[in-house]
Amino acid sequence: MEEIISLDALLEIINNKQVAKLRELFETSEIIDIAEVCDEIEDISKLLFIFKTVKSEYTAELFTYLNEDSQAKLINLFSDKQLTELITNSYTDDIVDFLEDLPANLVTRVLKASPKEERNDINKLLNYKEDTAGSIMTTEYVEISSDLTVKEALAQIKKVGQDAETISSTFVIDKKRNLVGVLYLDLLVLTDEDTPIKDIMNEEFHTANVHDDQEAVAETFKRYDLTVLPVLNNEHRLIGIITIDDVIDVMEKETSEDIAIQAGMQPLEDEYLKTGVFTLAKKRIVWLLFLMVSATFTSMIISRFEDSLKAAAVLSAFIPMFMDTGGNSGGQTTSLITRGLATKEVTTKDYGKVIWKELRVALVTGLVVATFNFLWIFLELTIGLVSNSGTIPNWQVAGLVALTLFSTIIIAKCLGASLPMFAQKIGLDPALMSGPIVTTLVDATSLLIYFLLCTQIFRLV
Amino acid sequence: MEEIISLDALLEIINNKQVAKLRELFETSEIIDIAEVCDEIEDISKLLFIFKTVKSEYTAELFTYLNEDSQAKLINLFSDKQLTELITNSYTDDIVDFLEDLPANLVTRVLKASPKEERNDINKLLNYKEDTAGSIMTTEYVEISSDLTVKEALAQIKKVGQDAETISSTFVIDKKRNLVGVLYLDLLVLTDEDTPIKDIMNEEFHTANVHDDQEAVAETFKRYDLTVLPVLNNEHRLIGIITIDDVIDVMEKETSEDIAIQAGMQPLEDEYLKTGVFTLAKKRIVWLLFLMVSATFTSMIISRFEDSLKAAAVLSAFIPMFMDTGGNSGGQTTSLITRGLATKEVTTKDYGKVIWKELRVALVTGLVVATFNFLWIFLELTIGLVSNSGTIPNWQVAGLVALTLFSTIIIAKCLGASLPMFAQKIGLDPALMSGPIVTTLVDATSLLIYFLLCTQIFRLV
Repeated sequence: MEEIISLDALLEIINNKQVAKLRELFETSEIIDIAEVCDEIEDISKLLFIFKTVKSEYTAELFTYLNEDSQAKLINLFSDKQLTELITNSYTDDIVDFLEDLPANLVTRVLKASPKEERNDINKLLNYKEDTAGSIMTTEYVEISSDLTVKEALAQIKKVGQDAETISSTFVIDKKRNLVGVLYLDLLVLTDEDTPIKDIMNEEFHTANVHDDQEAVAETFKRYDLTVLPVLNNEHRLIGIITIDDVIDVMEKETSEDIAIQAGMQPLEDEYLKTGVFTLAKKRIVWLLFLMVSATFTSMIISRFEDSLKAAAVLSAFIPMFMDTGGNSGGQTTSLITRGLATKEVTTKDYGKVIWKELRVALVTGLVVATFNFLWIFLELTIGLVSNSGTIPNWQVAGLVALTLFSTIIIAKCLGASLPMFAQKIGLDPALMSGPIVTTLVDATSLLIYFLLCTQIFRLV
Repeated sequence: MEEIISLDALLEIINNKQVAKLRELFETSEIIDIAEVCDEIEDISKLLFIFKTVKSEYTAELFTYLNEDSQAKLINLFSDKQLTELITNSYTDDIVDFLEDLPANLVTRVLKASPKEERNDINKLLNYKEDTAGSIMTTEYVEISSDLTVKEALAQIKKVGQDAETISSTFVIDKKRNLVGVLYLDLLVLTDEDTPIKDIMNEEFHTANVHDDQEAVAETFKRYDLTVLPVLNNEHRLIGIITIDDVIDVMEKETSEDIAIQAGMQPLEDEYLKTGVFTLAKKRIVWLLFLMVSATFTSMIISRFEDSLKAAAVLSAFIPMFMDTGGNSGGQTTSLITRGLATKEVTTKDYGKVIWKELRVALVTGLVVATFNFLWIFLELTIGLVSNSGTIPNWQVAGLVALTLFSTIIIAKCLGASLPMFAQKIGLDPALMSGPIVTTLVDATSLLIYFLLCTQIFRLV
């Protein structure tokens, strides 16, 4: 591939109205690369020049890659003829994608300019709930009747395949219009011409219901290495197909959502840079407030043991350290288990195995970290990095902190493994039981342990 | 699709030696579903019965899905003839996948049993470094000479395509064996028979170098919606292809690695349940120790301000609360930005935009959370949830904490946005600048602010 074009080079072509050069650019480049540069063009009339000059098969693709702002502005400026051309040259799933983000008056304009049949398809797709199979499927696929031979099927594909989003899989329909098989193009090509397609079609195919969640659809693609999946309505009739490129987008989006939830946020609907300041703030404040209020327990515990702290002020110096370490070690486990649940590497059936493994990991980790912690704190106190003005000897303070740390790591790892699996079991998103929640719980627990050890073992008030 | 078979049903078939039923099962089910059940079979002789009974085209696929333990045990028990059959019926990339996890003596046995040509291919692939294009490519693809017509090309594909992993794309080679074009099967089928393939092949194709990082390969697939990518050696000769199913696995693995690093762990090489306790502990201890030692600063700060805490013990009660809230709000931003960098939604060029956005988000979030915090703490103190035995009035304590919280949120969000982008800029993995590190930094900063406000504004010692 040649170099991706720069903004300056593209602007020069447009400003000098170098029509031939512009057309050649679209013929020899990936449209997504051009689109990225076009997104930086402020002057919408320059974009319009591209749409007037270049063949609509290219500009239709360009349009789907542009950001929402440019899309809305362009639609405002398009003539009805240009709109019709855009619709005719785009796949219905791409049209629906950008219509979903347009203001209602522009949607109406686009629908009015659409040819009747397209309009019906678009309207149907627009009505499927977000995040369902229906919302990511396309209606451009090829149906084949079940009584054809390989030769006849190939001839039919040749006749009607031009407008389909893919012909690598085509769909075999019986007389009652039920889907009875999936026909792979490579098998068609490799098989003798006179073979009936019934003999080579795949009758054990996977399907999705139009109302299925898109995450479940993505799982099916991954598990069975699919590139196309037929979508059925409630009457089991074929009404669309989903292709792998849209599924990869779904996978990315779902992972981003999981990551946001795990970090204590509501997921964004849009790209980060396109999301407004108040929306971003709103998505974060709810959880921050919830976690802040939950942290009240830590204040209450410290307040309850105020006298111990007064008697030995050095004790308060290590509270952040063991709280952080506890939170971090719990967060490690939660992240690992939540991810394992998301990729189906781990299921709730494995709970016994997981908790037994984490318990042993916690013992090893706790022993190593606590031993090191004991030596480190003893050193800190001895060389005076942290001053101990109280009456408890340095080695006892270090021992107290190390012992707390050890117990905290055990509890943090067990909680960290249990909470996401428990959430999954009762039908919640395991990502909800995330680092921040585990941290909050572990903080309170470790403080309690600390002060109980203080008062019980060291007989502090 | 019918129901997935249960372990009991499969064992019954094997125990009663129901050969016909077993064969039918493999013909009508997805092999990955059967493999999952097979993994639960303890008695290896029962698995061996499957491999002796069922056609090797099915068992070869079954083998690739089994867990490493079963694979090693089976290879130990296979006759040389069975080994040869397994190799002949598998794609080289799948063979290499399982060889990489086998003990050396078994690898030697497998290589000895391989037909000479296969052996050479396998040896070459085994030598590519892990995580490169070479390590995930396969050598089973179809080459077409550039002077053929559509009809001749289809005939050639029909002749040699049976053994290829895919024929949906085939690769056009000139007389010097340079790759000059990619030929899509659907276009071949849709085009008139007598057209020279030169007219319809794609000459602006993407390629990977065999040493390219697999993450970069996955990016190319995603960006350009590819399903196949040709792989070239340093002399620009075609030596293999990568298919989308392997790329999806790479994407999943890379995301899991990012998530592990972000949670303060070294990523696992293997699935969680298959990884041993000591390996799991080792992956976590290094970071825990590092973060624990970093938390020393918090101990030093608290120790330095011991007198303030003695004068007003209530002050220590809120330290965990604002530290947690600061850590959480920083973690929100870091997660979002790190994910944005991973999906290329955000680049380091956007730094100005991002920091300006985060600053405003921090102002809004900080104002709301700090206001609520003021009221909440005032309430806690007033109703006695937390006791204030000192001389500072409740509203001043609440004001001090809220002011600290506000500053902490601003700093946390700016640090949280800057650190991952800075890491990316200097060529480090942005996931390294993760929640735990941001938390540690924010903890120290917020404590400093807290005590500076104490001593400066409230004139505490």
